[in-house]
Amino acid sequence: MKFLDGQILDNSHIYSLRIHYEDTDIGGIVYHTKYLNFIERARSSLIRLLGFPAEKFLKLNQSIVVKNINISWYSPCSLGDCIFVKTNLIELKNASLCLQQVIFNEENNKKLASADVKLCFVNENMKVIKLPEKFSYVLKTNLPN
Amino acid sequence: MKFLDGQILDNSHIYSLRIHYEDTDIGGIVYHTKYLNFIERARSSLIRLLGFPAEKFLKLNQSIVVKNINISWYSPCSLGDCIFVKTNLIELKNASLCLQQVIFNEENNKKLASADVKLCFVNENMKVIKLPEKFSYVLKTNLPN
Amino acid sequence: MKFLDGQILDNSHIYSLRIHYEDTDIGGIVYHTKYLNFIERARSSLIRLLGFPAEKFLKLNQSIVVKNINISWYSPCSLGDCIFVKTNLIELKNASLCLQQVIFNEENNKKLASADVKLCFVNENMKVIKLPEKFSYVLKTNLPN
Amino acid sequence: MKFLDGQILDNSHIYSLRIHYEDTDIGGIVYHTKYLNFIERARSSLIRLLGFPAEKFLKLNQSIVVKNINISWYSPCSLGDCIFVKTNLIELKNASLCLQQVIFNEENNKKLASADVKLCFVNENMKVIKLPEKFSYVLKTNLPN
Repeated sequence: MKFLDGQILDNSHIYSLRIHYEDTDIGGIVYHTKYLNFIERARSSLIRLLGFPAEKFLKLNQSIVVKNINISWYSPCSLGDCIFVKTNLIELKNASLCLQQVIFNEENNKKLASADVKLCFVNENMKVIKLPEKFSYVLKTNLPN
Repeated sequence: MKFLDGQILDNSHIYSLRIHYEDTDIGGIVYHTKYLNFIERARSSLIRLLGFPAEKFLKLNQSIVVKNINISWYSPCSLGDCIFVKTNLIELKNASLCLQQVIFNEENNKKLASADVKLCFVNENMKVIKLPEKFSYVLKTNLPN
Repeated sequence: MKFLDGQILDNSHIYSLRIHYEDTDIGGIVYHTKYLNFIERARSSLIRLLGFPAEKFLKLNQSIVVKNINISWYSPCSLGDCIFVKTNLIELKNASLCLQQVIFNEENNKKLASADVKLCFVNENMKVIKLPEKFSYVLKTNLPN
Repeated sequence: MKFLDGQILDNSHIYSLRIHYEDTDIGGIVYHTKYLNFIERARSSLIRLLGFPAEKFLKLNQSIVVKNINISWYSPCSLGDCIFVKTNLIELKNASLCLQQVIFNEENNKKLASADVKLCFVNENMKVIKLPEKFSYVLKTNLPN
C-alpha cells in the first residue's frame, strides 16, 4: 500500500489524489477548506514515507500541530480531477518547521493553490517541545531546501 | 447556549440546523452521508440536554457506539434550508438501545430521510457493557415510547 | 492515476485507502459516518474504472442517488490503518441496483463493516429514470453475482 | 430559525456553535481544518442575516470565493465546547473584501484562532466581478470598521 503515501521526487514530496463527490460543493467545484485536508494528508503521508507515522508520535504522547497556514487559491478543480500536492521544506528550526505545499492539476500542471504551513511538536499538555533529532535529520536529508 | 442542544417536545427530541456550503455537493443538494452527521449531532445534543454529555462518558472510558443504521432518503434538501431531526426511543434493552431519527424540512414539514439507529455502550477495550441505569431511566422518562 | 480507482478482482471491485487524521475522532478510532464516505468513494471509483465517471452523468443531467443504506459496524480501525472496500453487485433491476460493500482491514483481513446500498438513477428533477442499458451491461459483465 | 444565523453586536457579527464528535480527531481536540469550516459558516450566516443568502447569489450565477486565508491557531478546543466566531470587516474595495474572523471559547473568552480572509465575487466563468453595490452598502453599514 506504499503507493498511497506518495513519493520523493527531486527534493519534493509528491502526493496524488482524486477529487470525490464529498470534496465538492453546490458551486460545482471543490469546497475551499478541503484543500487544507488535502495538504494535511500529504504531510502525514510524507512523514509516514520517511518512517515517522503520526500514530507513532501519538504513542509517545507527542503530536505535530499546525500553528499557521497562509493559503491562496488560484484556480478551481472539480469532481474526477486528479491533483497532486508538492511539498517542500522551507525552514527547519529547533522547535518548528515550515513547509511550502502547492497543489497542481495533474492533467495540465496548472497551479490550483499554494500554502505556507508552520508546524511544531507538542507534548500531551500542548507545550511546544524540540523536534526529535532523528526526525529533523531525515526530513532535511530527503527534502533539502 | 442551551438553544444549540434542541428540545424535548411531545416525547420526541427536536434538533434544528441550517444547511451550509460544506454540506452540499456538486449535485446541488446535500451529500447523502451528511444526514448521518446530522443525526449524530442530534443524538449527542439529546444526551447533553438530558445531563449526559458524551465527554463525561469518555472520562469514564466509556462511549456510545453505533452498531447498525438503516437509513432511507426520500427527498433532497439544499443550501440555506432549515431542517430538523426528530428523535424517538423505540427500544431500550440492558445493553443496547434503538432510536428512530427522522429528518424534516422545517419550511414544509416534508420528510427528507428516516433512520433506525442501534447503539450500545462500550468500555475502553470496545467491549459492550450494560447501559448506565441512571442514563436508561432518564432516557425512557423523557422519551417514552 | 488509474491506481486510485481500485481494481476488479474475482468478480468484486477492490478499493484501498489509508486512514487519515480527518477520519478519526476523539474516541481514537474512525468516526462512524466516514465509512459511508469510504464506500461512496469505492462506488464512484468502480464506475469510473468501468468507463462511467460520475461527472459524465452530471453533464447529461443524470445522477446516481442513494435510496437506502443498511450498514453494520463490527470492529474499529484507526489512524494509519490501510483498509479496503470490496464491492459486489447483488441486484440489478430496470430502475435500481443494489450493491454489497464490505470493509476490511488490509493487515489482517478483519471485517470492519458491511453495507447493503440501494441506488437509482434520477434526472435533473430528481425523478427516477431507467438505468442506461450500456451501464447495466458493463456492470453485470464485470461484477457477475 | 433566526437564532442559527448569529447576531450583530457592537459592529461585529457573532456566531456560536457547539463542538461535535465529527469535529474532533484522535488527538482529542478539534481537527485544525474544521476552524475554516466554522468561519465559513459564520460568513454565510452573516450575509444571510444581512439579507444576502448565498443561494440567492447562486441563482444569479454569482458566488463569493475565498482568495486567501491567513490563519493562526493559539489554543485547542474539544468535544462539547461552545465557541463563537467574531467577524469584522477590515477592508472593502470595489472587487474584494477582507474580513477578520476570530474564534473564542465561550466559557472563558480565550482566543483559539484568528484568520484574515480575503474574498471576491465571481461570475459563472469564475471571473472576478464588482461587488454588488447594495451588498457593499449593507455590509459596511452593519460592520463599520
